[in-house]
Amino acid sequence: MTRVFNFSAGPSTLPVPVLEQVREELLDWRGTGMSVMEMSHRDKPFMSIATEAEADLREVLSIPANYKVLFMQGGATGQFAAVPLNLLNGKSGDYIVNGAWGVKAVKECAKWGQANTAAKPATFNQVPARETWTLDPNAAYVHYTPNETIEGVEFHSIPDVGSVPLVADFSSSFLSRPLDVSKFGVIYAGAQKNAGPAGITFVIIREDLLGTCNPLAPSIFDYKAVADNDSMLNTPSTFSWYVSGLVTKWIKSEGGLAVIGERNRRKSSLIYDYIDSEPFYTNPVARADRSWMNVVWTLADSTLDAEFVKGAAAAGMPGLKGHRIVGGLRASIYNAMPEAGCAALVDYMKEFVRTRG
Amino acid sequence: MTRVFNFSAGPSTLPVPVLEQVREELLDWRGTGMSVMEMSHRDKPFMSIATEAEADLREVLSIPANYKVLFMQGGATGQFAAVPLNLLNGKSGDYIVNGAWGVKAVKECAKWGQANTAAKPATFNQVPARETWTLDPNAAYVHYTPNETIEGVEFHSIPDVGSVPLVADFSSSFLSRPLDVSKFGVIYAGAQKNAGPAGITFVIIREDLLGTCNPLAPSIFDYKAVADNDSMLNTPSTFSWYVSGLVTKWIKSEGGLAVIGERNRRKSSLIYDYIDSEPFYTNPVARADRSWMNVVWTLADSTLDAEFVKGAAAAGMPGLKGHRIVGGLRASIYNAMPEAGCAALVDYMKEFVRTRG
Repeated sequence: MTRVFNFSAGPSTLPVPVLEQVREELLDWRGTGMSVMEMSHRDKPFMSIATEAEADLREVLSIPANYKVLFMQGGATGQFAAVPLNLLNGKSGDYIVNGAWGVKAVKECAKWGQANTAAKPATFNQVPARETWTLDPNAAYVHYTPNETIEGVEFHSIPDVGSVPLVADFSSSFLSRPLDVSKFGVIYAGAQKNAGPAGITFVIIREDLLGTCNPLAPSIFDYKAVADNDSMLNTPSTFSWYVSGLVTKWIKSEGGLAVIGERNRRKSSLIYDYIDSEPFYTNPVARADRSWMNVVWTLADSTLDAEFVKGAAAAGMPGLKGHRIVGGLRASIYNAMPEAGCAALVDYMKEFVRTRG
Repeated sequence: MTRVFNFSAGPSTLPVPVLEQVREELLDWRGTGMSVMEMSHRDKPFMSIATEAEADLREVLSIPANYKVLFMQGGATGQFAAVPLNLLNGKSGDYIVNGAWGVKAVKECAKWGQANTAAKPATFNQVPARETWTLDPNAAYVHYTPNETIEGVEFHSIPDVGSVPLVADFSSSFLSRPLDVSKFGVIYAGAQKNAGPAGITFVIIREDLLGTCNPLAPSIFDYKAVADNDSMLNTPSTFSWYVSGLVTKWIKSEGGLAVIGERNRRKSSLIYDYIDSEPFYTNPVARADRSWMNVVWTLADSTLDAEFVKGAAAAGMPGLKGHRIVGGLRASIYNAMPEAGCAALVDYMKEFVRTRG
């Protein structure tokens, strides 16, 4: 078996020790005589898995006691609906838009209330400067996307929005570095980048924001109902919950988010520094706002894009094609991408420019 | 490793060959160098898995060409919302209620329109006779629950509702026997009983019913949007999709739904026949409406329930506790429960009545 360096934007690479443990336990989890996939979500074995996954997540993120952690389904796109359904409560929502996902979030909010685009740069290659935001002090919340996967743009600090609850779609940078959860009203994230397989969605919500759900919301999106039922209002995505719990344990075993964050900074710098040194490659993002998770670039000759991607895949580095919206190339280097993968990519880029540049 | 006979109501037991294949492929799916969990849903390897899963499902259920198959998230509880959001279109919905899940479906529909309870027996131990149904010929659809998991009541034939689209929550009897899909407008089912792990929800919908979604519906619940995007409007629950595809292949390898259905009839008869022969045990369901999937019963002395459940678990048969709503005992004997499991249960029941009855 040869493992590749998988640069997919998500679902994407997972830590090998996690996959090995999943394999080891697949037909018989700790002597229960059954797979985790086969467990009733209401019986003790799965309850222990679920509880431990939450406890570990609370530990690695230092989640304050006045926040609930929900394990939901439907991904960030589901949350684009759930957030306004739960929080608008007759008010409007302010949206900071710095990429394709933010645009989608605004559209979904507009179904149930007023979605104000409080900031939106003409091009999505930087985060909009805080002083340009036109925030409504009476808004129900301010929503932003800390990392835009497609454009490779990331907020490297948490914006100050005063007393209005800050809501963040952390899908592609969740668990990628330490985070002060207390600055947020709601954090949500699909698992399939840094935190596990697709199929489970994390919602971390300050308790005082529960209980204002629009009565028209589908029950599975009612944060309070989900919280009151310990994320078992209906059958949760049990296996994804389990695997994501193992990923959180792996983060702990690596030394926690401080270590992970520093590694992610180093990994991305390795690629950015090379891109900046080589005129054949260009990254369009403002330096201060470059993503640690998704490194995007173009070739001096875009007709070579397909050859670049194909050659990389043949060399054991699949997943480098840029998103169809922006084209070009993209390396998604989430937590489980080893530094050796980033180094191998730079070597390939050097060789490509030597032979084809 | 000792495998148990797992009688959980769901998630529940899966075919051992499926679990073995999942284990075998876990770190490297067919030489791709990655786990299915790590695959981009938009790249060829996962696309081939997804396409094959749909083709196999179409084959085993003989799904007509004018039906779309959707792979969604959120379970049946999500569909309780999605069905009225997509189909009501200003009309009302008729609901046949013969158990706890039907009750929930009605409540969710009532958020967006008129939900008529067209039939509902005083007690949920039989299916309501067709001639008692007060159907509205102008209803958008007639909804029913072919198998009620909690009460162990099952429709053994498809009701005739004329030209109004028939909508069925098949969660707990999906793929349990041959089915004439052409009789239905919409079939939906969570996978976690007969069809795979939790986290993926099947929707089979006649094409002419697409396109009437309430504009207020969350995007992930818009059947047409999901269909137009081949169930990849957003990241699907990829690993559950894959495993459910393997389960469908297992059904094919067993000889298809005719063989599976006959086996399920035999398995349930084995237990029902014994219950009927032994006064210590009682099944409350009308004989013609007894479920092939969930066999419920009570003990002559209900104070022994806990001992029965505990002793069975110790003997390698966990999951027999009845649902908290109805109490008593329940054996869920989905497709992957072998006949030997049902025989072992009957042996245990005999021994229990001999020593404790």
